[in-house]
Order: sequence, then C-alpha cells, then structure tokens
Amino acid sequence: MLEPSQKYMSKLFKDGKAMFLAYDQGLEHGPKDFNDKNYDPDYIIDIALRNNFTGLIFHKGLAEKYRENYAGKVPLIVKVNGKNNIAKLEPYSPVVCSVDYAVKLGADAIGYTLYVGSPFESQAIDEFREIQEEARDYGLPVVGWMYPRGQFVPNDTDPTIVAYGARVGLEIGADVLKVKYTGDRESFRKVVQMAGKCKVLCAGGLKSDPKTFLQQTKDIMEVGASGVAVGRNVWQSDNPDAVSRAIEDIIFKGASVEKALERFK
Amino acid sequence: MLEPSQKYMSKLFKDGKAMFLAYDQGLEHGPKDFNDKNYDPDYIIDIALRNNFTGLIFHKGLAEKYRENYAGKVPLIVKVNGKNNIAKLEPYSPVVCSVDYAVKLGADAIGYTLYVGSPFESQAIDEFREIQEEARDYGLPVVGWMYPRGQFVPNDTDPTIVAYGARVGLEIGADVLKVKYTGDRESFRKVVQMAGKCKVLCAGGLKSDPKTFLQQTKDIMEVGASGVAVGRNVWQSDNPDAVSRAIEDIIFKGASVEKALERFK
Amino acid sequence: MLEPSQKYMSKLFKDGKAMFLAYDQGLEHGPKDFNDKNYDPDYIIDIALRNNFTGLIFHKGLAEKYRENYAGKVPLIVKVNGKNNIAKLEPYSPVVCSVDYAVKLGADAIGYTLYVGSPFESQAIDEFREIQEEARDYGLPVVGWMYPRGQFVPNDTDPTIVAYGARVGLEIGADVLKVKYTGDRESFRKVVQMAGKCKVLCAGGLKSDPKTFLQQTKDIMEVGASGVAVGRNVWQSDNPDAVSRAIEDIIFKGASVEKALERFK
Amino acid sequence: MLEPSQKYMSKLFKDGKAMFLAYDQGLEHGPKDFNDKNYDPDYIIDIALRNNFTGLIFHKGLAEKYRENYAGKVPLIVKVNGKNNIAKLEPYSPVVCSVDYAVKLGADAIGYTLYVGSPFESQAIDEFREIQEEARDYGLPVVGWMYPRGQFVPNDTDPTIVAYGARVGLEIGADVLKVKYTGDRESFRKVVQMAGKCKVLCAGGLKSDPKTFLQQTKDIMEVGASGVAVGRNVWQSDNPDAVSRAIEDIIFKGASVEKALERFK
Amino acid sequence: MLEPSQKYMSKLFKDGKAMFLAYDQGLEHGPKDFNDKNYDPDYIIDIALRNNFTGLIFHKGLAEKYRENYAGKVPLIVKVNGKNNIAKLEPYSPVVCSVDYAVKLGADAIGYTLYVGSPFESQAIDEFREIQEEARDYGLPVVGWMYPRGQFVPNDTDPTIVAYGARVGLEIGADVLKVKYTGDRESFRKVVQMAGKCKVLCAGGLKSDPKTFLQQTKDIMEVGASGVAVGRNVWQSDNPDAVSRAIEDIIFKGASVEKALERFK
Repeated sequence: MLEPSQKYMSKLFKDGKAMFLAYDQGLEHGPKDFNDKNYDPDYIIDIALRNNFTGLIFHKGLAEKYRENYAGKVPLIVKVNGKNNIAKLEPYSPVVCSVDYAVKLGADAIGYTLYVGSPFESQAIDEFREIQEEARDYGLPVVGWMYPRGQFVPNDTDPTIVAYGARVGLEIGADVLKVKYTGDRESFRKVVQMAGKCKVLCAGGLKSDPKTFLQQTKDIMEVGASGVAVGRNVWQSDNPDAVSRAIEDIIFKGASVEKALERFK
Repeated sequence: MLEPSQKYMSKLFKDGKAMFLAYDQGLEHGPKDFNDKNYDPDYIIDIALRNNFTGLIFHKGLAEKYRENYAGKVPLIVKVNGKNNIAKLEPYSPVVCSVDYAVKLGADAIGYTLYVGSPFESQAIDEFREIQEEARDYGLPVVGWMYPRGQFVPNDTDPTIVAYGARVGLEIGADVLKVKYTGDRESFRKVVQMAGKCKVLCAGGLKSDPKTFLQQTKDIMEVGASGVAVGRNVWQSDNPDAVSRAIEDIIFKGASVEKALERFK
Repeated sequence: MLEPSQKYMSKLFKDGKAMFLAYDQGLEHGPKDFNDKNYDPDYIIDIALRNNFTGLIFHKGLAEKYRENYAGKVPLIVKVNGKNNIAKLEPYSPVVCSVDYAVKLGADAIGYTLYVGSPFESQAIDEFREIQEEARDYGLPVVGWMYPRGQFVPNDTDPTIVAYGARVGLEIGADVLKVKYTGDRESFRKVVQMAGKCKVLCAGGLKSDPKTFLQQTKDIMEVGASGVAVGRNVWQSDNPDAVSRAIEDIIFKGASVEKALERFK
Repeated sequence: MLEPSQKYMSKLFKDGKAMFLAYDQGLEHGPKDFNDKNYDPDYIIDIALRNNFTGLIFHKGLAEKYRENYAGKVPLIVKVNGKNNIAKLEPYSPVVCSVDYAVKLGADAIGYTLYVGSPFESQAIDEFREIQEEARDYGLPVVGWMYPRGQFVPNDTDPTIVAYGARVGLEIGADVLKVKYTGDRESFRKVVQMAGKCKVLCAGGLKSDPKTFLQQTKDIMEVGASGVAVGRNVWQSDNPDAVSRAIEDIIFKGASVEKALERFK
Repeated sequence: MLEPSQKYMSKLFKDGKAMFLAYDQGLEHGPKDFNDKNYDPDYIIDIALRNNFTGLIFHKGLAEKYRENYAGKVPLIVKVNGKNNIAKLEPYSPVVCSVDYAVKLGADAIGYTLYVGSPFESQAIDEFREIQEEARDYGLPVVGWMYPRGQFVPNDTDPTIVAYGARVGLEIGADVLKVKYTGDRESFRKVVQMAGKCKVLCAGGLKSDPKTFLQQTKDIMEVGASGVAVGRNVWQSDNPDAVSRAIEDIIFKGASVEKALERFK
C-alpha cells in the first residue's frame, strides 16, 4: 500500500478530526509526572473509555499488559520509539517495538518521535524509513512526533522551526504530524500549510489552566489542524472528564471556548 | 504470544512469589567474589537443589557445561547479557547468548541487564527489543535487571531513580523486574507501584548480616514485591541453607524476621 | 541488468536531452525557500504539467501523497536520500526511501545525493552501492547529485573539484550526474569529459535573473551537457512558464539566449 | 548441539591432554618473528607432522593454501580472528574467517582471541557469541585465547587478571582456554579452578630457554592444566624436534623436567 | 571452493606471470592524473587490447559502461573498493561494488585495497572477509592491494612494513598481492618470501623514466615476483605501446632491461 488504510484512518479520525490520549510519559518523563492515581495505566484507560478519545497512545509494555482493558474499545496508537530523560545527551529515541510486534498488539497506528535537527537525526531517519515502509505493508497510519530539538535548535517552539519540522514529516512519508504549539494562531497556520496533505495534531504539553489549553485548541482548529494529542492536561487534571469533553466540544462540535468551559461547571 | 506462557511463569512463581539464586557474578565481578568453595558452579547448584529456589540464574557457559547437574530440577534463567568489570567505561552489557540458544539450553526465562540512563542505553534498548520479542515467540518470561547507572546517575539506590528504572521496565515490555533496594519500605512501595503489572524482585546485593537482609526481604514483600533474586547473601554465607530457608519462610510462608532467623539456630 | 532500461531513459531524455523540475527543497532547505504559492506541491505539479519537463523530482512523502495529480503525466525521479539543514554537521544525507518502495511509488529514476569528500562519504558510498545495485535490478536509472562538500572542500564550484565529483559518479556507477555550474563554459567542458558516458545535468541553484540562468544553460549544452535539473529558478519565478519554456527552447530546440528570452515578452 | 562433539575433542585431546603448535604469528607479529626457515608454513607443518602435536593453529590463508600438506595428518584449529600489530590502538581483533568457511577448510576447532577488559570488548563479545553458537551447530570446539589487555590491564600476567580472563571464557561458552602463564604454580592453580569445566592450555609466549619453558609446562600440568599451545618456543628453536618431544614427554608421559631435557642430548 | 578456479587463474597468469593495466586512478586520484587523452576509458582499453596485458583493472562504473569495448578481449579485474583523495582522513576505502555485481559484470578477479595498519583496518578486514569468501563461492581470484598506510606507518615503502603487508595478505586469504616496490631487489625478495604461496605483483606507482621502471620490473621478477600491475607508467607515457611491450619482454620473455628498452627505438 502507498497510503494508510481507511480501515484505520476512519477509526482514528471522525469527520477528519482526532483526539488522542497520550500516555507515553511513563517512559519519557518517569514517575515525576505521576500522582497516586495516574501512575496506573488503568486510570488512564478509564478516562479514555469514559470519554470520546479516538486514540490511546501507549508504549509496548502497557499495550501488552493492559490490553484486556482497552482492546476493541478505543483505537491503539503504539509509540514504537521512546527514551527516558536521565541521560543528558543530544536527543535520540531508540526503537522499543517493531512494527510487526505492534501489529500483533493490535495497533491502529504507529507513533514515532523524530528529533528534527538532532546530531543523531540521520540514524533516526534510517529507522523511520524502515518503520514507515513496514507500516505501509499493513496499511497502518504513521504518526510522526515532529520535534525539533538539540544543540542546533535554540527554541523548539519557534514558528519557523516548528514549520520546518512539519515539512520534514510530509517529505519523509508520515501521515499524521504531532507538533508543538507555536504560540499564536497565524504562525500555526503556516505550520499546517507546510504539512501539506498530512494531518496536523497539536501536542498538549505541560499542564496549563483549562482556558488556556482550550483556547489553543480552538486556535489550531481554526487554522486547519485536525485535532490534539493530549496527555497531562487531561490526566493530571482534577477533572479529567470535564477537560476531555471540553476538548471534544471544540474539536468535533466547533464549540466556542466559553461554551466548552461550561463542562467545568 | 503477547505474554509469557503460564508453563514457565507457574514454574518460576509459586503463589505469585519467587526466590531466584543468582550466580552471574563470575562474569560480572570475577574471582574476587569467590572463595574456595563457591567458585565452583556445582556448589551453587547443590545449594539450589537442597533448598526451594524457584530459579537459578546462569550465564550461557555455566548453563551449558553444568546442565546435567541441574536440568529438570530447578528452573533456569539464562542471563543473556553480561560484562566483566575490568574496563572502567560507561556501563553497557553486550549480549552473550541469543534467545534461540537460551531456548536450546532449556531456559525457563530470559534475563537481561539494562543500564538505565547510561550513555549506551540506546544500543541496549535496541538489543532488548529484539530479545523481548524473540522471547515472546517462545512464551518465555523476560526478567529485566533494571539498573540505573553511569555518569548521569549519581546515586543508583535513590528511590526516584529506582522507581524510574522500574517504570522503564514496564514500558518496554519486561515481565519481571529485578531492582535494587531503595533503603526503606515506603519508597520501595512506590517502585512497586510504578512497575504496574510487572512482578518486582529485589536484588540481594553485597553480603550483609542475615538479619538486615531478611528485614529487607520482609519489607519488600509487605509493599507488594514478588520475591528476591539473591546470590552473595546465600552462597557467600557460612550457612547457605539457613539463609535460603529463612528467605523461603518470609517469602512463601509470611514468617516474621524473628521467626525466620530461627533457621540459624 | 547492467544498465538502465531504455523504457525509463527514453521517458527522461528526449533526443538525449532532459529538463527536470526539482522540488526536494522542502526537506533540504525548509519553509524559507517557499512563498504562499510554491509551498504547495500541487503548484509545482501544475508547472511541470503545463510545460515540457521530462522529469519531476520528489522525496517519498510528496511522491506518495500527491501521486494522483502527476502519475502517468510526468516521469518521476524519487530522491531517495535527503536531509534538512538544521544541524550544522559535516554533510551526510540519510536514506529516506528504499529502492523497493520507490518502485512501488512508480519511480522512473532514483536520485541520490553524494557529498563527495565529506568525512561521512564512506558511509554514503556504502548506501549508494546498495541503491545502485538494487536500481539495476529494476533497470532504473540512477541520478547522482555529485556534490563535493564539507571541511575538505573549501570551494564547491571550483572546476577541479566539480570535475572530480563528476568522475566519482562515473566510477561508482551513476548514470546521470547532477553537478553545480563551474562558472564558465570551458571548465564545464572538462567536467563533462570526466563524466565519460554518464549524462551530465547542471543544477539550477539559487534563483538568478533569467538571462544569467539561460546563458548558463546555453553554455553547458554547448560543451556536452544533457540538460538541467532546475527548481528555484522556475518555481520562485513570477513567471514560471516563461522560464520553463525558455529553458526548453535552449535545450531541445537549440535556441539562442536572446531567442529564448522572448518567452518573457 | 550444546557441547563440542567428541569426534573433534578426541582428536585434539589424548587422555584429556593436548599439545598444539601455534603459527598465527605471521599475522599477529609479522616478519620480525621469522628467520630464513620458519617464515615458511611448510617448515612448521613438517615440525607438526614429525612430532606428536595434537593440533595445528593457522589463520585462514595458511589453512587454505597449504592444506594439501597437513590435511588429514594433524588436527586443524582455525584461528578465526586476528590483527597485525602496526596500529597502536586499544586491542581489538576482527574476524578474518567465518565459521562456515572454517568448516569448509576442515577445521577441527575454532580459535578466537578475546581481549578481556579492552574498551572494544563489547564488540568482540558480540562476535564471539555468534561464532560460538555457529560452532555449536557443527559440534566444533571453541578455543578462547583469553587475553586481558589494554589500558585497563596494567599487567596481563597478574594472577588475578589471568584468572578473571579464564572465568570469562567459562561464562561465555568457550570449551578450551588458552591463557598466559601467571609466573608460579599456585597462582595458576587458581586460574584452572576458575575455568571450571573448561580445559586450560598455557600459552608458550616469547622463546625462553628450554629448561624454563619445560618447568613451566610441568608446573601447569601439575595444577590441572590440559596442555600447551606453543609456537615460538618450538619453531624458533634450533632443535624444534627436541623441544616438541620434551613437551610431549611432560604432558603425555608425566616425565620430569630433567627426564624431558634428555631429548636435547 | 577453497581456491581460485583455474578458469580464471589461467587467463590472468600466463606461465604463472601477469601484467595488469590499472585504471582505478579516476576514483583514487581524480582528474589531476589525466591529460586530454587518457581521461577517456576507451583510450586505456585500446592500449590494453593493442598490447598483451593479461588483465584490466576497472572500478564498477567503467566496467559497466565500457564493457562492449573490452569484454571477452581482455580479462577484467573489478576493483570492488575505492575512495577519492579529497578528505584527509585516516585511510579507509569503502566497498563500491558487491561481489555478486562484479560477477554480473563478468569479472575474472576481484580487487580490494587493504590499508594495513590504518586505524580503520578492522572495519576493512570485516569487509575483506566477506568479499574473499563470496569470491571463493564463484572461484574468483582475490587480488589484494596490500598497502600499509596511515598515522602508524611513517614510511610505506619501508621493506619491513611492505613485507608485513604482504604477509597479512597471505594470512587472510588473498591469492595475488599487489605491493609497492621496496627500493631494492634483496628487500623485495623478502617480501616475496613472506607472501608464501601468494603471487606477488609490483605496483607501478608514479610515472618514472622507462629505464628506471623497467629495471625495477626486472629486479622484482628475478626475486620471485609474478609480474606488475601498472597504470600511470603506461598510460601517462607518450609511447604507451613501447612501455607495454618492454614490460612484456621482461616479464614473459625474460629480456634484459637493455633489450627491452629497444622497444622505444
């Protein structure tokens, strides 16, 4: 196949829009992101199932050991590379799960983080190429975390660099791009333009107050993005269901930020 | 398969609890760990067989050359990577035995040391991925020695870093995690939490006095660990059978430390 | 096969002459090369189709996602390696598309950039060898971007170094060589000589005024080159069709520069 | 197979004892080890055939080109890795012959040098693993040159480090260990102990006077070694047959040093 | 096979003697070696065909594109590795042609340059091993350019180092060794001795006056060499046919230097 199968795309995107719940932070950031509830993958699975997330992002181990709780209920994006943040080295994220194994796990999409501009990017590109082409064999969509980072990237939310990262994703064959927010709507519009026919999802990032996050979500949707991949803003929230539904209102129902905020009342 | 076979798990864990005798020190530490008795693998095998260890940890060479003495009598965990401690470099442990070969050796589980946070961790992750996925093909459980170490790990028993190491094991698909003791019960509880559905075994470490070691064993069991993987505290002891039975009392019979110490009388 | 198939060569070269439209800049240079029109691959495809380009140069992602708009209408050269320009390292361009996948994409030729003289050239040569030999299996022509660059190349348009780069292309089995202009006709003649039986295309490079670019095109054709691979001089132009037709006049009809410039009137 | 075939072991070891003639010095040390006779492999072959060596150690090229002279007459140990001593780098010995090819050459055993403690040891271990496992497929014994060396090994005949090297050989699956002499009988006893069920051969090293070498041979046999792998002490000798027979007397007949020295009269 | 097939050896060596025309300089040295005639591979092919060269040395690209002019008329040695001289790094020559592809090209022998003593020699040895063993599968002779070079080789024509380089070739399984001249007959005799059953060819090197070159040729033949592999001394000559025939007279007819020089009259 030369494109992701509609079998998967239509599960992940409703009317072309998506809302993924990201939970790769256990590997990427470690216990510091967690409190007494959200360290438990089942807590996250429950949030995903109670709300209308169109995808759940897990690394291999969680996908394996908790599959009876989520399989068949929410689409699975297997994040096939990842790294912890203990070593302070130029960014590189080794492959932790083969595409074949992700297929066995029931993946509906493959996730891969590319640290654009890293001194180790060449090695990553090599791995991405193989992963992307193997994913094509199964018709699986490829979601690229397009993250410029490292000594040559002084500011990883600089609109130019975010736009370049998005373009790299388009050029090398990703189908969906997860990018950071550039800080304002107009610069994000350019990011979406550079992404061409790729779908663009905005990363949630650090937990912020709901209004800020929802406004950002509204902004990116207005300039052509296809949704969000959000983690901490949901599962670190005291009211994860309210956040989830507010996001859903904006993305799928076109609600205003004010309207969406009513979910918190 | 997407999980270890019960064929193996039920041999290694009794009522969900395990007690492994580790003897990978010949490669890891060299002759300095040995006296005139315990340099001999048969001495260790005899300890394992006289007591109720649920697993024996060997590197390839010992597993090969001494198999007639232990095979079929005690489950075998083949430690598939290892290194000596002569070169003082950032930690990395090359693969000394393929999974296929471990299977020929009759392995009931695969052991792999991951130096979490090492500058060479990416290479190790690459190897771990292949090993874990090959082990799955045989239904073999994967035991991860989750050992944060190297220039970026100032204190490898710091509770936060031990917990992070355990989480890494969960995220990348290990089934059983061998971790160091964090020094107190409550911090170890968090390690067990972060490990999710992985089973946690506490490493024995340097030989200490029996009471200290047994207290530690009691503590970890009380906060959710599944047992120990112990070496020097047993086979460097003047009374390895007493230590072994005392450990067994605590892990499998829920004995108090005081009760268990009676084995020494 | 030991040579490219005429099936492909006769599509790419008319009377032995070629005019390729290059659009690999999205990856190589990023958004800075683009304005509000030409960031869009469809804008470039339209230029190619409205004029008589004998080849369109795309990286994998564009070749995949935009294929319904160009496939069967203009020959496709898949650039199988590429890099962005964020990291400032010695030049090396990793493989972003396998030959097998390029074949699935419908490639009529394979493009590969070799940074001749780079400290990483050995690794690149390794990859080129495999790509060239796989391309032979399909009869696909191999177009080598023969670009001397890096710390050992003080001036990458020095006629001697450009000629050496071309010779490297001949010796390692490229069929078509894309090289930079050396600045004058006589030195370019030597480049063409050194290329032996390889066909030589001149790169367009930075956008210059039409007269300069067309004079350069005239010069290289007069000393034995087979055409151009041009990008920014066409799609950054306010009048891309005029440039395209003027180039066509010179290459295929032997027009003078003055005659060709009439296209702009 | 999980152990070397008796087909080979019984050829290489008589009553459990062995005497190998080593001639890998042409690669390892170069012409400086040779005089006008012993540069010629046929001279060495003749020594091996006139005496009772139970093995002849050659690198690939000699094994190939001189096989008609020795094949079927003396068991062949193919040394599958090797290096010259021109570059002064941390020790690493690349593979010069595959196991498959050694089998074609008629090898009765595989020889491999492991520089224990070298900064490049990890890479070597990787190669050793594959070689050992392939050798097992053919039932071929694996002879490990267990040579601690490099910046982390200040004294490569220190008994502790030699013993550690031997233990590494046991742990990673070698069958026969070639080690350096530690200088005295009692420390060598510990080396033999650490080697467990591996057979230990002492290296000959630099040519010394016959009495010294024979005394060393007597010592190692008395503490459990299985024989020697000797080169320069034989073929640099003015009387290689006398040395060979004296060694044979000690190893196979249990002769005293004084008795063995009568061979020189 | 364990040796090169006579099918090839008898083409390359007449009465055990050879005279190869080397033309790998386009890659190795670049345009600076060429004048207005000899840049053209057809010029070299014509020299080879007009005279009695027993082999023609080409890299892949020339072997491919010019094969209709030489195939079946002169034996082909495909030089399977090579490098340009732009980057000033420690010497390493990557593989530019696989053995399989060389076979498709109709190779009668495989040529490989080994920079003996280079810091990158280990990697090269790895590649040589595979190439030598693959060549054996086809019965193709392996010609080793045994060139000590790099920071650890202060003088690459020092007789000791040239002899060591030749010995390395014998030990690792080359069949024919191309070495540099050591400056005098007696030291070259030792080189030939160290090469054992390998055939030794002397490299031509920089163009020198015919008498000097022919005297060198006479010298090496008298001490046991099997011929020459010559390039610049032939095709940079104003009278390439005279040089070629003079060489032929010495190598194949045992002519004196004086007699051979008559070819120039």
